[in-house]
Amino acid sequence: MQPRVVIIGGGFGGYAAARELKGAPVDVTVIDRTNHHLFQPLLYQVASATLAPSDIAVAIRWVLRNQHNATVLLGEATAIDVEGRTVTLDGGASVLPYDFLIVATGTRHSYFGHPEWEALAPGLKSIEDALDIRNRFLMSFEEAEREQDPAARRAFQTFVIVGGGPTGVELAGTIPAVARVGFHREFKHIDTRETRVILLEGLPRILTSFPDALADRARRDLEQLGVEVRTGAMVTRIESDAVYVGDERIPARTVFWAAGNAASPLGRSLGVPLDRSGRVEVERDLSVPGHPEVFVVGDLAATVQRDGVTPVPGVAPAANQEGRAAARNILATVGNQPRRPFRYINKGNLATIGRHRAVADFGFIRVRGFFAWFLWLFVHIMYLVGFRNRVTVLVQWAFAYFTYERGMRVITNSARIAVSNPKPRNIVAATTAPAAQKGTPGLK
Amino acid sequence: MQPRVVIIGGGFGGYAAARELKGAPVDVTVIDRTNHHLFQPLLYQVASATLAPSDIAVAIRWVLRNQHNATVLLGEATAIDVEGRTVTLDGGASVLPYDFLIVATGTRHSYFGHPEWEALAPGLKSIEDALDIRNRFLMSFEEAEREQDPAARRAFQTFVIVGGGPTGVELAGTIPAVARVGFHREFKHIDTRETRVILLEGLPRILTSFPDALADRARRDLEQLGVEVRTGAMVTRIESDAVYVGDERIPARTVFWAAGNAASPLGRSLGVPLDRSGRVEVERDLSVPGHPEVFVVGDLAATVQRDGVTPVPGVAPAANQEGRAAARNILATVGNQPRRPFRYINKGNLATIGRHRAVADFGFIRVRGFFAWFLWLFVHIMYLVGFRNRVTVLVQWAFAYFTYERGMRVITNSARIAVSNPKPRNIVAATTAPAAQKGTPGLK
Repeated sequence: MQPRVVIIGGGFGGYAAARELKGAPVDVTVIDRTNHHLFQPLLYQVASATLAPSDIAVAIRWVLRNQHNATVLLGEATAIDVEGRTVTLDGGASVLPYDFLIVATGTRHSYFGHPEWEALAPGLKSIEDALDIRNRFLMSFEEAEREQDPAARRAFQTFVIVGGGPTGVELAGTIPAVARVGFHREFKHIDTRETRVILLEGLPRILTSFPDALADRARRDLEQLGVEVRTGAMVTRIESDAVYVGDERIPARTVFWAAGNAASPLGRSLGVPLDRSGRVEVERDLSVPGHPEVFVVGDLAATVQRDGVTPVPGVAPAANQEGRAAARNILATVGNQPRRPFRYINKGNLATIGRHRAVADFGFIRVRGFFAWFLWLFVHIMYLVGFRNRVTVLVQWAFAYFTYERGMRVITNSARIAVSNPKPRNIVAATTAPAAQKGTPGLK
Repeated sequence: MQPRVVIIGGGFGGYAAARELKGAPVDVTVIDRTNHHLFQPLLYQVASATLAPSDIAVAIRWVLRNQHNATVLLGEATAIDVEGRTVTLDGGASVLPYDFLIVATGTRHSYFGHPEWEALAPGLKSIEDALDIRNRFLMSFEEAEREQDPAARRAFQTFVIVGGGPTGVELAGTIPAVARVGFHREFKHIDTRETRVILLEGLPRILTSFPDALADRARRDLEQLGVEVRTGAMVTRIESDAVYVGDERIPARTVFWAAGNAASPLGRSLGVPLDRSGRVEVERDLSVPGHPEVFVVGDLAATVQRDGVTPVPGVAPAANQEGRAAARNILATVGNQPRRPFRYINKGNLATIGRHRAVADFGFIRVRGFFAWFLWLFVHIMYLVGFRNRVTVLVQWAFAYFTYERGMRVITNSARIAVSNPKPRNIVAATTAPAAQKGTPGLK
């Protein structure tokens, strides 16, 4: 029997590992709790109603359909027994033995000890997250249109994004144009140009993974778009209709979370040292200490670059490179060859700001403004190669870009926001019922 | 103040009425509990993972953005007070007065006195329905892939569609090709060519709205695709893993409902005569008896064709024509002109069968086979004019047609099926745990 390689997670790391094992003398099983491989860097465009989920997500089975040594299983790996070399699925319903294991389950958002904030301020990691954010984004305007009380209405038209990393910056940068230009003619009772977008960052500056000059430029670009950027602003409390920075209360009905990562809890069941954020401290060959048959790749792995100090960033190209490296080390062991230490190659760091600006850092060269944005577009379209939706994504982008309009406007589960955000519903149109005259309690 | 026209429902009837009132000296308010206008005839293509929701749904606000006398409100009309001339929204949160009212809330599925079947056999009326059916459709293959017991696995690979009208026929016709060709290479433990599709119809033949010869042809076309068509087959019971026809038990995990319509309950609050299925029996000008200021259009209206006997069918073109007619009669009254009786113009009846066949009945001419399918394609693309997604729909269709592949493969709420369909989860791959050896109880 061929060595069994089990890969947990079908994201960038797991998918790259599986592809690297194509045609190799091993049996590959990819386990994921979703059925799709997701192009996460564009998730914020699903959240902002520009792209459809299927534009950036493809069935894992479909991308691996021609790989005869690979099996895909839909299920959640709930525990790993490194001594018995098995993975438990769905809390014990079944157990899968392995000879080699690659754990690539990534991270979730960290709410810094406030798990109760998650329901009020969703993060952006999965398609479900993106649809949740999209629904809240679109519903805010609907609620504002029906709201009579001016202060309550302003709270519906205020969007707070917590976290000034690339996700927060990209999300904040897309809202102003959509709200002010795209939606302007559609609402009769509100002026969508009054939409406020506030980006909160606890550290002294945004985009800490970028050089100072680029981060400054990004800040100015955001401010030019009308985004209020507040650095050194620690969130102390989130309520259904407000965010607190220190003691200051910012009335806002819609809060998105883009701050802090917590490693997938599966790392704990490996019984090896974890870093502060729960990531697994792997060896130079990406295996875990004491278990050369177990590898951790992607955001769940804590590893360093060639200098032995700088951490490898939690970005898609890093996960990709690590997945391939782990797979090659497995094949080396199977073929009685020595393993190689992982070497991260920095492909650059990119973040878009609004419609046609970006900052890009390739180490040897730094770019900003329109040219950086064009680079961003090019890189992302190249990455989407292999994704069948390249053509339609281009059509959607071109449409959204030139018209300012957003096509992905279907609100599917408005019940969800109604539950997490309970409030009286008022009608703006002329009414005779006294109930409609009341404002939202707690707002003056 | 201009006369206030309130339109409940932004489907074909309500949307057509609103458009007809563009530029007229009236204030229009469109109320819908969803934010989108839906191209319902293509809903089955969302269900079969060919199209994305946003391909066939557009924000009602967006399509009415240039109509200055129209306001759109997201909310559910829960009661109508025809004496006080008000519409109650969201159970009393607010009340909207009107001078003229158009009720266009359509129908839901009827489960013939078995409302408990809805959770087991979803119908296809809304985007949520379509995504639910898509999830179940895709999840069935995932579950089959993980199932060890051959009988249980067959039940996962058996799809039963209840109802042989156009929706049932179109849904049944799309599954075989997707399952047998599209998914064939992707699954390693099941043979997707063994997928069974069973279409159950209680009446003696399918497509009762079509002439006999076309219905016969459609049946043969379906059978050639491998669909088991069973007429005179009354469903007596539905369980989570089986459908009963009389006393016969058909093991099947996935059942879709396309039989029977029940009118929207809002019709009852009008206090006027309803027909057996709850539709409002309107006057010839589409107003309700005794209330010339209240109109009912679309599937909720029971009306007859020129001959005074033949009912107007519950199809999109009829709703469209009725919506326009009601709006014109309102404008006639406002302008002190006489109203006109509604006259239905039959634009033909079309149903597709699988990849490139259809039946079409235009009254004076009947078409079938490839030419009818081509007509269907043409008509539907023409109808999509005004929908921004025409180009991408064409790209998706062409892709799906030539590759047999389905791009819309994101399963978003698999938790939903897991809840409604509880069962042990087994892994097909080699396992060591005894739990994995058990089959699904109740299947031999």
